[in-house]
Amino acid sequence: MTTVNCALIQHRCRDSHANNLAASCTAIRRAAADGAELIVLAELHGSAYFCQSEDCANFALAETIDGTSVTTLSALAAELRIVLVISLFERRSSAVYHNSAVVVERDGSIAGVYRKMHIPDDPGFYEKFYFTPGDGTFTPIATSVGKLGVLVCWDQWYPEAARLMALAGAQLLIYPTAIGWDPADDSAEQQRQLDAWLTVQRGHAIANGVPLLAVNRVGFEAAPAAAAHDGIEFWGNSFAAGPQGEILARAAVEECVVHASVDLHRSEQVRRIWPFFRDRRIDAYAELTRRWRD
Amino acid sequence: MTTVNCALIQHRCRDSHANNLAASCTAIRRAAADGAELIVLAELHGSAYFCQSEDCANFALAETIDGTSVTTLSALAAELRIVLVISLFERRSSAVYHNSAVVVERDGSIAGVYRKMHIPDDPGFYEKFYFTPGDGTFTPIATSVGKLGVLVCWDQWYPEAARLMALAGAQLLIYPTAIGWDPADDSAEQQRQLDAWLTVQRGHAIANGVPLLAVNRVGFEAAPAAAAHDGIEFWGNSFAAGPQGEILARAAVEECVVHASVDLHRSEQVRRIWPFFRDRRIDAYAELTRRWRD
Repeated sequence: MTTVNCALIQHRCRDSHANNLAASCTAIRRAAADGAELIVLAELHGSAYFCQSEDCANFALAETIDGTSVTTLSALAAELRIVLVISLFERRSSAVYHNSAVVVERDGSIAGVYRKMHIPDDPGFYEKFYFTPGDGTFTPIATSVGKLGVLVCWDQWYPEAARLMALAGAQLLIYPTAIGWDPADDSAEQQRQLDAWLTVQRGHAIANGVPLLAVNRVGFEAAPAAAAHDGIEFWGNSFAAGPQGEILARAAVEECVVHASVDLHRSEQVRRIWPFFRDRRIDAYAELTRRWRD
Repeated sequence: MTTVNCALIQHRCRDSHANNLAASCTAIRRAAADGAELIVLAELHGSAYFCQSEDCANFALAETIDGTSVTTLSALAAELRIVLVISLFERRSSAVYHNSAVVVERDGSIAGVYRKMHIPDDPGFYEKFYFTPGDGTFTPIATSVGKLGVLVCWDQWYPEAARLMALAGAQLLIYPTAIGWDPADDSAEQQRQLDAWLTVQRGHAIANGVPLLAVNRVGFEAAPAAAAHDGIEFWGNSFAAGPQGEILARAAVEECVVHASVDLHRSEQVRRIWPFFRDRRIDAYAELTRRWRD
């Protein structure tokens, strides 16, 4: 298979976990009926973006991989014969929680789990409180639609993550995301941030000669009453890019499903005209593992 | 100093080395008169892009760092009190030639030399025949306008190069370049290539929170009679980007000088709202020095 019909589910948050899960299922059914064989949900689609505050009570939102969310969604994947990328606030133990992506194969089995490696922490995005950084190795997850380089949100700012996935054979980079504007920023700053988000990810596609899917949530979510910030206006703009960074499909700032037909074989052609991997100076890259070169 | 007035000299090739050098001097004088204090020339501005063929006779174009080009241009830099980035086909010895960038300080002294690390080789761009890959360490060059992360052309496709420069304290990434279209490609492919070139470099600015200058040549240069390709239409589009990847100034496909005022202090602000360096997983990046993770 070289062409993969992809669907990106760009939703706003509902008023309960049950309603979010039901909305995801409805959208997945419709996307599959429209021909999608790889369907990607946005980051932490089961709930509001709870990281707007540091609140111990929010750990109750976490689930194990054999919990309700993955069980329900993997059964649906098996019914529809699709590959599904789920995002999960994962309870790995009572002591360790992760921001994880679970990839489900067409038969409903778990193809693999990726645990977010780069964890942000800035006003309104207090993720370091909740999520232990992943202890994995940036390894793609093999599925019937190809080797998926699944990463999560903040990872998308790191060329290292994309590169390691590509070096390990990822045929498609996938970023479930929850990113938005601070309503206190002016529109010029908001536009720069959105452009930067689109651009840096398109850059990963280009530098590695691989297509890429980014799936974001949309809609305003208010900050908790005691917070110092105004809440987050999630900016949607979920998109699919080809291996030259070209936009294949892109959502507006509204609830929707984005369909994109991604030709995995084009990477082969693009990497022949732009053979970047041939010329990497691996003899001179050792200091990439330093914190700062001082 | 936090704001640097930059000028990017985007020229087409003249009919002789002397005329190219004279045209560079004229443009530099005008740019300095217009307030530029950092002026950047395009890659191999002294000659046609001779790498369209593999011809031993072209080694006669090479010069040492104390040759005519650098001597002339450094005297001009001293006269005008500017920092100047020169590109040079460098004869390091009778056995070793490089594609180098020479940075000249306001007093005409050599601030540093960067020798291109990533060397391309594809139809019409036979650089591996001419240029020994640099044996340096991606170290910025300290000048009176800041620490300059000088890289050259093909380097611009490598996130590793930009990252290593930023980790070593580069305040501004600078790419002298010679890139263009194959006239045999259709306009959609040409547009994708130009967009990719702009995007991947803007991505480096974003990922590292630093501004960036890219300086290209412009105009059609025919291939040698025996070549299998049609020549190169150099695409201009020299540009300056800020630390969020925002375009500060950009040239059209014509001979011109692009002026841009670059605020180096903005990196400090941008890196505080997007503190990417804080969260790099240096414990998990060791395999970036592998050729392929197989």
